[in-house]
Amino acid sequence: MVPRYARPAMTALWEPEAKYRIWFEIEAHATEKLGELGVVPKSAAKALWDWWATQPEIDVAAIDAIEAVTKHDVIAFLTWVAEQVGDEARFMHQGMTSSDVLDTTLAVQLARATDILLADMDALLAALKTRAEEQKYTPTIGRSHGIHAEPVTFGLKLAQAYAEFDRCRQRLVAAREEIATCAISGAVGTFANIDPAVEAHVAEKLGLTPEPISTQVIPRDRHAMYFATLAVIAGSIERLSVEIRHLQRTEVLEAEEYFSPGQKGSSAMPHKRNPILTENLTGQARMIRAYALPALENVALWHERDISHSSVERFIGPDATITLDFALARLTGVVEKLLVYPERMQKNLDAMGGLVHSQRVLLALTQAGVSREDAYAIVQRNAMKVWESAGTLSLLDLLKADGQVTAALSEDELEEKFDLDYHFRQVDTIFARVFG
Amino acid sequence: MVPRYARPAMTALWEPEAKYRIWFEIEAHATEKLGELGVVPKSAAKALWDWWATQPEIDVAAIDAIEAVTKHDVIAFLTWVAEQVGDEARFMHQGMTSSDVLDTTLAVQLARATDILLADMDALLAALKTRAEEQKYTPTIGRSHGIHAEPVTFGLKLAQAYAEFDRCRQRLVAAREEIATCAISGAVGTFANIDPAVEAHVAEKLGLTPEPISTQVIPRDRHAMYFATLAVIAGSIERLSVEIRHLQRTEVLEAEEYFSPGQKGSSAMPHKRNPILTENLTGQARMIRAYALPALENVALWHERDISHSSVERFIGPDATITLDFALARLTGVVEKLLVYPERMQKNLDAMGGLVHSQRVLLALTQAGVSREDAYAIVQRNAMKVWESAGTLSLLDLLKADGQVTAALSEDELEEKFDLDYHFRQVDTIFARVFG
Amino acid sequence: MVPRYARPAMTALWEPEAKYRIWFEIEAHATEKLGELGVVPKSAAKALWDWWATQPEIDVAAIDAIEAVTKHDVIAFLTWVAEQVGDEARFMHQGMTSSDVLDTTLAVQLARATDILLADMDALLAALKTRAEEQKYTPTIGRSHGIHAEPVTFGLKLAQAYAEFDRCRQRLVAAREEIATCAISGAVGTFANIDPAVEAHVAEKLGLTPEPISTQVIPRDRHAMYFATLAVIAGSIERLSVEIRHLQRTEVLEAEEYFSPGQKGSSAMPHKRNPILTENLTGQARMIRAYALPALENVALWHERDISHSSVERFIGPDATITLDFALARLTGVVEKLLVYPERMQKNLDAMGGLVHSQRVLLALTQAGVSREDAYAIVQRNAMKVWESAGTLSLLDLLKADGQVTAALSEDELEEKFDLDYHFRQVDTIFARVFG
Amino acid sequence: MVPRYARPAMTALWEPEAKYRIWFEIEAHATEKLGELGVVPKSAAKALWDWWATQPEIDVAAIDAIEAVTKHDVIAFLTWVAEQVGDEARFMHQGMTSSDVLDTTLAVQLARATDILLADMDALLAALKTRAEEQKYTPTIGRSHGIHAEPVTFGLKLAQAYAEFDRCRQRLVAAREEIATCAISGAVGTFANIDPAVEAHVAEKLGLTPEPISTQVIPRDRHAMYFATLAVIAGSIERLSVEIRHLQRTEVLEAEEYFSPGQKGSSAMPHKRNPILTENLTGQARMIRAYALPALENVALWHERDISHSSVERFIGPDATITLDFALARLTGVVEKLLVYPERMQKNLDAMGGLVHSQRVLLALTQAGVSREDAYAIVQRNAMKVWESAGTLSLLDLLKADGQVTAALSEDELEEKFDLDYHFRQVDTIFARVFG
Repeated sequence: MVPRYARPAMTALWEPEAKYRIWFEIEAHATEKLGELGVVPKSAAKALWDWWATQPEIDVAAIDAIEAVTKHDVIAFLTWVAEQVGDEARFMHQGMTSSDVLDTTLAVQLARATDILLADMDALLAALKTRAEEQKYTPTIGRSHGIHAEPVTFGLKLAQAYAEFDRCRQRLVAAREEIATCAISGAVGTFANIDPAVEAHVAEKLGLTPEPISTQVIPRDRHAMYFATLAVIAGSIERLSVEIRHLQRTEVLEAEEYFSPGQKGSSAMPHKRNPILTENLTGQARMIRAYALPALENVALWHERDISHSSVERFIGPDATITLDFALARLTGVVEKLLVYPERMQKNLDAMGGLVHSQRVLLALTQAGVSREDAYAIVQRNAMKVWESAGTLSLLDLLKADGQVTAALSEDELEEKFDLDYHFRQVDTIFARVFG
Repeated sequence: MVPRYARPAMTALWEPEAKYRIWFEIEAHATEKLGELGVVPKSAAKALWDWWATQPEIDVAAIDAIEAVTKHDVIAFLTWVAEQVGDEARFMHQGMTSSDVLDTTLAVQLARATDILLADMDALLAALKTRAEEQKYTPTIGRSHGIHAEPVTFGLKLAQAYAEFDRCRQRLVAAREEIATCAISGAVGTFANIDPAVEAHVAEKLGLTPEPISTQVIPRDRHAMYFATLAVIAGSIERLSVEIRHLQRTEVLEAEEYFSPGQKGSSAMPHKRNPILTENLTGQARMIRAYALPALENVALWHERDISHSSVERFIGPDATITLDFALARLTGVVEKLLVYPERMQKNLDAMGGLVHSQRVLLALTQAGVSREDAYAIVQRNAMKVWESAGTLSLLDLLKADGQVTAALSEDELEEKFDLDYHFRQVDTIFARVFG
Repeated sequence: MVPRYARPAMTALWEPEAKYRIWFEIEAHATEKLGELGVVPKSAAKALWDWWATQPEIDVAAIDAIEAVTKHDVIAFLTWVAEQVGDEARFMHQGMTSSDVLDTTLAVQLARATDILLADMDALLAALKTRAEEQKYTPTIGRSHGIHAEPVTFGLKLAQAYAEFDRCRQRLVAAREEIATCAISGAVGTFANIDPAVEAHVAEKLGLTPEPISTQVIPRDRHAMYFATLAVIAGSIERLSVEIRHLQRTEVLEAEEYFSPGQKGSSAMPHKRNPILTENLTGQARMIRAYALPALENVALWHERDISHSSVERFIGPDATITLDFALARLTGVVEKLLVYPERMQKNLDAMGGLVHSQRVLLALTQAGVSREDAYAIVQRNAMKVWESAGTLSLLDLLKADGQVTAALSEDELEEKFDLDYHFRQVDTIFARVFG
Repeated sequence: MVPRYARPAMTALWEPEAKYRIWFEIEAHATEKLGELGVVPKSAAKALWDWWATQPEIDVAAIDAIEAVTKHDVIAFLTWVAEQVGDEARFMHQGMTSSDVLDTTLAVQLARATDILLADMDALLAALKTRAEEQKYTPTIGRSHGIHAEPVTFGLKLAQAYAEFDRCRQRLVAAREEIATCAISGAVGTFANIDPAVEAHVAEKLGLTPEPISTQVIPRDRHAMYFATLAVIAGSIERLSVEIRHLQRTEVLEAEEYFSPGQKGSSAMPHKRNPILTENLTGQARMIRAYALPALENVALWHERDISHSSVERFIGPDATITLDFALARLTGVVEKLLVYPERMQKNLDAMGGLVHSQRVLLALTQAGVSREDAYAIVQRNAMKVWESAGTLSLLDLLKADGQVTAALSEDELEEKFDLDYHFRQVDTIFARVFG
C-alpha cells in the first residue's frame, strides 16, 4: 500500500482495529448461538455483548504484546477480550478454530471492500454516461493501428468505455458473491465440535452465505477468482487511461486531463502539460494485475490447508482493493473534468484529404458493377497519392479526375460518399444498446 | 501446443480448416441478410450456399499462397472463395471489415472450445462424485500445515474437490457468456456501411449475442476474463493434483495413481511408482495460468483497436484450451482409477498416539470448569510427550495418569473423547450441501 | 509454437530427432568414459560410435511406439538403439538415470538456442548501428509523457535502442552460462554408481561445465534465470516496437514500417498503411514474458526432484526461444527497412511555436538574476499562450514583447536560445559512449 | 509493505527522509561541479554544504505541503531547501530535470538495498555451510517424485541449497551493477543545458557509473532485470522452504522448525507444531515473484519516457526489497535453528525394506551378464512385492530366494549391494565442488 494511492474509507477497512471488531462480532454471534444450543451458558454471549455496548476501544498494542509471547494472533485476541470481559469470556471460541474467525473475517473485509468498489464503479459509470451523452455527436476520427480509419463520435468512445465498465461492474458483483461466504466448521471442517447451526447464524448476521464444504479454511479458488476479476478491471482502467494519454499527445491533442492553475508540468520545461494522472493509472493497473498472480498460486494449499496463503493475503487483500479504489476514483475525476477539444478533432479528421471516406467509394464502385479487386486497386491508387501528400491532396478531387471512377459514378454520387453524417446514422441505435 | 498434451477434438477446432469453415459461414449468413435487405442480389447468398452444399474441401495451401502475396488473410480467403464460386462472390463482405469475421470466428471457436471443456468438467465431476460416495466414510487424518490435525473421511476430501470443480464449472459457463458475442459492425464499429440487422442475423445463426458496442474489434476485456477464468480452474487442477502427490508419498501412501502392468517408474530404480500424472498436471496448470497474463495485457488496445492482441491469441487461443482439455481429461482418469488404501489411512491416523483427539479433551476440560488457559496447558503438556515419542506413547494413557485431568473428567468421559465416529456425525450434512 | 512465428533453424533444434541425436551423444560419450574406467567393455562405445558413423536415421515413430508401452521415454530410446546396435548396447546408461540424459540434453538445446539468439542479436545491433549513424544528426522532437519536450536526433533514439539491446546481449551471454551445465550424477546426484569423471568427460565433449551439485536434476533456478532473461529482452523488443508504432501514427508519421507493393492494409479501407509488424512484435513480447512465470514456479521442486517442471519445459523450451528468435529477426528487418521522414520530423518539431526552447529561456532568465520562481512564472505565462494557440503563436515573438523578459535579456540573447544545433553539441559524446 | 514482514534498516532506506537526503546530495554535488565549471557561482555549493553540515532535519510535512500546491515533488523539495538555505539555493538544479534526481536516487536506494540483501545472503550462506558441514554424513533418503529413491546425506541437501543461494548471490551482484547508474543528462538526455562532467562527478560521489545514454530517464530494462533477479531468488527461498515443510510433515518428521516454549501451534489443537515460518516464506516468495511482472511491463515507456513506471516503483521498490530482506533473514533463522532428527531419517530410510538399493542390484545383474531388460524385470518383480508389503518384506531376502538372481550373484555379492556407505563415497568430492 502506497499512502498517496490510498483513500481513507478503504484503508480503514484493513486497519487492525477494523479486523478485531469483526473478530469480536464473529465470536460473539457464535457464542450467542452456542448459548441457544445449550453448549455454553447464555450468560456468556450476554457478557460479551454488554461489554461491546460500552463501545470499548480496541487496544491493538496490548493485543500485539500478547501475540509476541503466544505467537498466535487469535489466542492473543481472545486473551485480551477475556481480560476485559471477565470469566464469562472463557466460553468464546468453543469448538472453533482460528481459521473460522480469520477466513470469515477476510470474507467480511473483501465484501465490504467490494461494496466500496461498486460505489466507485457507479460513480465512474455515471461520469462516463454524462460525458458520453454530452459528446454523443462530436465527430472525431476512429483509429485502428494508430492510423486514421473512419469517423466515429467522441460519445461513442465514451459509450464503449461505459459498456466495458458496466461489464466490469457485473464481474465485481459476481466476484463479491464468490468470496462472501462464512466458515465456522472447526479444525478440519467436519463440525466435529460445533453445530452447523452456529455457522448459519454467524453467516446470516454478517450477510454471508455458509461455505458448503470447508477444510479449516475457505477454499482459495474463491479468492483467486476475486483477485483475477480485479486484474481484469485493471485492464479496463488501463485501456481508458491509454486512450486519454493518446488523445493528449502533442500531435493529437483532442482531449486533455484538467490542468489546475498552480500545477507545474515539468521542473525544467514550463510549457509542459502532461497526462500524468492517466500515466499514473497505467502503472497502478500493472500493480493490480500483478496481485492476481499470488492469489492464483494460493489455490493449491496442502491437504486440508497450509498457511502459505496468509502472508500473501496480508499484502494483496489491502493493496489490491486500496489501489483499485484509488484508481477508480482517480479515473472518475479524470473523466468528469476531461477537457475535450472538438475543433481539434475536426481538424485531425480533415487532415488526411478525405482518405477516411475511401471505403464508401470502394463499396459504391463495387455496387456500380466494378469487380471488388478492380475497385480496390482504383481506390488504393488514388488513396496512396493522398497519403503520400500528407493530406495536401484531396481524395475527392483525385477521384473526380480518374476516368475509371467517373465511368462508374457521377460527380454527385461521388460527393455524397464524402458526407460525414452518413457515419453517424446508427449512433442512436448503439447508445440505446449501451445505455438502455 | 505440445502434441502429447493435446486431444483431437479440441485440436481440430483450431486447425486452419475449421477456422475457414467458420469464416465462410459468417460471410454467407451476412450475404444472405444483405440480400434480404436489398443491398446485394439475393442470388449472391444462394451461390455461396449452393457451393457449400457440395461439401467442398478447403484448400488451405491455396489460401496461404494468396496470403503470401496480399499479406492479408481475409482478403486471401475471399479471393479463393471467389475463385471457387464465381462472379456472385463479389458481393461477399459488403460493408464488413476483416475483424468482423476474425473476432466473430474467435467467439465461435472459444464457445465451442468451452463446450468441450464443460463436457470434460462434467466427466470430472461425475468421477469425483462416484469416488466421494464410495469413500464417504473412509476415515483418514485431516492435515493442516502438513501436520496431523483431526480425522476426516476420504469422501470429504473428494467432496471438497467436487464442490470446487462445481464452482469452476459455473465460472466456465459465465466465461462462455463473456466471449460468445458477435460483431459485424464495420471498420470502426459504427455500422456506417452495414445494417445492424446483419449482425443480429449472423449472431442468431451462430448461437452468439450481438456485441452492444464494438470498435472494429470485440473488446478484449471479455477475452481477459475468459483466460483468467481458465487460470483459476488451473489452480483447482493443481490443488487436487498436489493432494494426490502428497497422498502417494512413500511415508504417507494413502492413495496412488493407477500403475499399469508394462509401466516403468524409473530407468534406474525398478521399485519406483511415481505420481507422474499429477506432477505432469501440476506443470500444465502453471502453463494455463501463464496464458492469462498476455490476455490481461491485451485489454488496453490503442484507440479503436490495434492488432497486438492477435499474435497473442494465435498462441493462447489454442494452447490454453487444448491444454486445459487435456488436463481435465487426464485428471478425470486419475480420479476414476485412483488406488485408495483405507488400511494405510487408518494406520496413519493411529500413528500419533491419539493426539488427533486433543481438542475434544481440551473442550471437555473447559466445559468441566477448567479455565481455557489451564486446559490448554494441561493438554499441551501431555500432547508434547506423545509428540516427542513419535506416537509410541498414548495420549489417552497419559491423560488417565494426569491428576489435573482426572480431577475434572472420569475415565469413561475421557475414553469417549477418543471415539473416531464422533467426528463423522456431520458428514451426511456436508454431503447434502455439496451434492444436493 | 505458432508456425508463422517460427524460423527453421531454431525449430529444428526442438524436433524429436535433434533431441534423440543429443541423447545418443551423451550416452555414447558416457559409455566411452565408462570404458576407459573399466566399468564396461571398451567395445561398447566403439559399437555405438561405429553405428553412429553410418549416419543412421532416427526412427522417431519406432521410439514412440516403444514408449507407448513402457511409458518411459529414455528406456524407449535405449531399447530402440539396442535394436540397432546389438548386444554391446546393453552397457549404455550404466549407473545413469534418465534425468542425466534429459537435463544435459536440455542444457545443450538451450545453449544452442542461445547461440542462435546471440547471432540474431548481433544482426539487430548491426542494423541499429547502421541506422543510428545514418540518422545521427536528424533533428526530431523528444517527447516525455507523449508531449513535446526538447529536440533530440533520430540517431539518438536508435543509439538508445542499441545500448539497450547491447545490454540484452550481455544478459543473454550470462543466461547461457547459467544453463550450460552437465549433470551425470545418478539417481539422486551422489555419483553412487557412476564416477564423476564420466560427467566431466561428457561436459567437455558437449561444451558444458559440470553442475557442482545436482540431485537427479540440474537445479531449476538456472532455468528460471534463463527464461526471466528472455522476458527482459522481450520488454526491450516491445519498447522499440511501441516507439515505431507511435512514430507511424497518422498525426506523427515520422517513420513507417516498409510497405511492400502488393500489400493491403485493410480489406475495407484501401488507404491504410498499418504498423502491423511492430504491433505483432508487441504481442509476441507479451508471450515471451509470460513464459518466464512457469519457469519461476518450477524452481521449488520437491526434495531431490519432482517432474512438474517437465511439462512446463516441453512448452516453454521451444516456445520462448522460437518466438524470441522470430521476434529478433522480424525487428531487425523492421529496423533495416524503416522508412524515415526527416521533413515531417522537422515539421513536427516546429509545430509548437518554439515551445521546445522554453527551458533555455528559463535558465537564461535565472542566470540573468531573475529568481527561479519568477522566471518559471514568466516563461510559463507566455508558453501557455502558445500552447493554447496550438502553435500558431510564436514563443519567441511573445517573449520579445514581454517587458519582464526584455528587462533581463536582449533580443540577440533571446534569439540565441532558439538555436536547434545548441541541443546537439553532445551527440558525438553520447555516440562515443554507446558505440565506443 | 506489511509491517510484520519488514526490518528497520531496509525500511528506513525507503522513508521520505532518506529519499530527500539523497536528493540533496545529488543537487549539492551537481551544484558543486557546476560551480567548478563556472556555470553557477562557487558560493552556491558552499551555501548548500554549509547548511548540510548543520545536520538539518528534513521537514517532510513542510515539503508535502508545498507539493500539495505545486503538484510536483522535486520543485516542492527545491522550494523548501531554498527556504532553508537562502538566495544561493536558486542555482541548484541548473539544466537538470526532475528525473535526473529521481532516477539517480532510485539507483542509490536500490544499490543500498542490494547491499543489505547481499549481507543477508552472506548470513544465509554461512548458516547453510555450518549446518551442511555438521550434517555432512547424516544418512537420509533421497526422494524423487516424493517417493523414496536412493540414500543421500542431509549435508548434501544443505550443500545443494548453499550452491543455489551462492548462485543467487552472484545474480544479485550482477543485478546491482545493472541498476547502479547515474543520469544527469537533462530534459531529454542530450546534455543540452548541462555538461556531462556534472553527471560524471555525481556518479563518482555516489558510487554509481554514468548511464551511457539516458532519455530523461534511466532505461527501465535495467530495473526489469533487477526485479526479475529478485523473483528468481524468491524461487530459491520457496524451494528450501518447501523442502523443510516436507521434512516436518507428521509422517516424515526428519526435521522441524524450532518451536519456542511459549508458542502455540493451534488455538484448537494443543498438539500441533506447524512449519509456519517456511509456509510464511512460501507466500512471501509468491509476492516477490509477482513484483517482477509490473517491472517487466515498465520497460516499454513511450518515446523518451512516460511516467507510468513511477507508480509501479513506489510499490515494488520498497515492497520487493523489504520483503526479500525479511525473507532471507527469516530463512537464515530457520536454517540456524532447524531441529534435525537423524534417527528418524534412518528409520525412514529403512522403512522400505531395502528397496532403495534396487538399482545397485540391477547394475550388478547387468554386469554379471544378464540383459538389461531381464535384469529390470527380475528386480522390479521382487521390488513390487516389497512395495506392496509396505516395507514389511525385505528386498534382500526376496532376492536371495530368487533363482534367477542367485544364478548370477552370490549371497555375499548381494549383501554388498545393500551397503549404505557405498552411496556416500563422493560426498567429499561434491562438498569440495560446492564449498571450494
